[in-house]
Amino acid sequence: MAVYTEIDDDALVAFMAAYDVGEVLSCKGIAEGIENSNFIVTTSTGPYILTLYEKRVAIKDLPFFLGLMDHLAAAGLPCPVPLRTQAGETLSELADRPAALVTFLAGMWPRRPEPAHCRGVGETLAALHLAGEGFPIRRPNALGPDAWPALLQASGRDADTVLPGLFRKLSASLDRLTTAWPTDLPSGVIHADLFPDNVFFRQDRLSGVIDFYFACNDAFAYDIAICLNAWCFEPDMSFNVTKARRFLKGYQSVRTLSEAEVMAMPILCEGASMRFLLTRLYDWLHTPEDAFVTPKDPGEYIKKLDFHANVKEPQAYGFD
Amino acid sequence: MAVYTEIDDDALVAFMAAYDVGEVLSCKGIAEGIENSNFIVTTSTGPYILTLYEKRVAIKDLPFFLGLMDHLAAAGLPCPVPLRTQAGETLSELADRPAALVTFLAGMWPRRPEPAHCRGVGETLAALHLAGEGFPIRRPNALGPDAWPALLQASGRDADTVLPGLFRKLSASLDRLTTAWPTDLPSGVIHADLFPDNVFFRQDRLSGVIDFYFACNDAFAYDIAICLNAWCFEPDMSFNVTKARRFLKGYQSVRTLSEAEVMAMPILCEGASMRFLLTRLYDWLHTPEDAFVTPKDPGEYIKKLDFHANVKEPQAYGFD
Repeated sequence: MAVYTEIDDDALVAFMAAYDVGEVLSCKGIAEGIENSNFIVTTSTGPYILTLYEKRVAIKDLPFFLGLMDHLAAAGLPCPVPLRTQAGETLSELADRPAALVTFLAGMWPRRPEPAHCRGVGETLAALHLAGEGFPIRRPNALGPDAWPALLQASGRDADTVLPGLFRKLSASLDRLTTAWPTDLPSGVIHADLFPDNVFFRQDRLSGVIDFYFACNDAFAYDIAICLNAWCFEPDMSFNVTKARRFLKGYQSVRTLSEAEVMAMPILCEGASMRFLLTRLYDWLHTPEDAFVTPKDPGEYIKKLDFHANVKEPQAYGFD
Repeated sequence: MAVYTEIDDDALVAFMAAYDVGEVLSCKGIAEGIENSNFIVTTSTGPYILTLYEKRVAIKDLPFFLGLMDHLAAAGLPCPVPLRTQAGETLSELADRPAALVTFLAGMWPRRPEPAHCRGVGETLAALHLAGEGFPIRRPNALGPDAWPALLQASGRDADTVLPGLFRKLSASLDRLTTAWPTDLPSGVIHADLFPDNVFFRQDRLSGVIDFYFACNDAFAYDIAICLNAWCFEPDMSFNVTKARRFLKGYQSVRTLSEAEVMAMPILCEGASMRFLLTRLYDWLHTPEDAFVTPKDPGEYIKKLDFHANVKEPQAYGFD
């Protein structure tokens, strides 16, 4: 959650006048998104989401993110659509920051995901992978395996303050992952952060996917691995294979996985755990105590990493 | 700003079902209100504001606050109206907290108040004072002059870490205020916290007054003094008599001030400065460094206190 930037009411009215959306009725900072400042702006034509891009998002990546939402929405994916100013631009400026106005999506994210949610997420992830085809801008995965050694070094021996021996454990795990990492899987645009708080439902029916600010080009199956981690563990960190089976069934009802993708799932899941563990570990060790945002506990992903490291066959994830 | 409590989506749907407001479409925590957790809940019938009362608000006071909003709205004041459940209750419970759902008011609060805003605030404050008549519940002002000595003691000599000599200065000021404080001015329901962020405007026309959680029974003129402090100083802490004149003209176009109220204005303004100075000082000295809410700088109200202490006649506030 985060609202970093205060918006002047007059500046907002001037900003909104560039869009064809009617009179501004209200603007309220919302507790959503970690990287940016987000606001619900209500106008005489309805609610919109206004995002101010704070410094954690690279300006050079904004055409990728905004263009991608435009592209995916045009292909039928229920994601926010960036509005265009009368000059035809989706990227504008407000309060000295890059800013964009996007459509408002109805729905609530599930605090306690059920198997029914997982099926919908699987279907929509596959739809996203297919819909990304033809999107002309490319963005490498800045948090892929190449980035992990440097990320681990950035935490360094301080990792052991979280769990004794963690640095050595992660170093060994990284060596293994680097050697075994598959490089020739079907690839394209992936979401790369499809956690429950980025997926909205209306009465158990998926109604929206948000937050494309980690989207990039990478293996589709890696996106699946991220979701298995994000959706299929219980609060006690036990793996719920029913949820995984429903997720994978949903996915494969839209896009069939190749044999290579299925076989790679254990290593991809271990890698996905590593990726979130490393960033959470870094944030945990480097967030000032008086920071506005509370860092997420890296411990959760240590347990997930251990689980996947012990998986021998993809059947453990519910593949038939 | 504050969102303290996370709401479970299923619990929210169950809570909302008690009201006749249609399907819940979304719920987003908003960065508004310091004492409570606030959310915009959008349903198929429109947006509403959901408030969860956190521990800083006394449960015993909630019937006063909710009843008052109901009473004032019925009298035509543009304030939030508490919705009633099918059982007829305005006060309910959600996430183990007292909770209420109120109507959504369009408008934005002015970041840089202009004289035109001040006139509207004056008119509406007077309308509020008249509209409060007949409201049957009473609530003494818990932050009135009787509370100030204890508040100062709670900060104690630590006050001097904010400004050398501050404790002694405030003690002397308190003695003077206590002696001179008027006790027989026209009284009734006052808002007691009508700062710019609690007043919404649409295109410079006042559209709403919110946040009645300091409202109480006290002298009407004291409410005016709070507003003169909150609306009529420039960022450099110079007093803008043009704004004050517009505010007072607006007020008196609705309710005429008595001679006694006018004459008491310097001491009331000094007292109003003392009240906000003392609570800000306390929060400043007692908020943990890692707290979610950044305390407001008490220095602003030291300067305002000094200004009013040097005012000899009510003409300084723009009275004719």
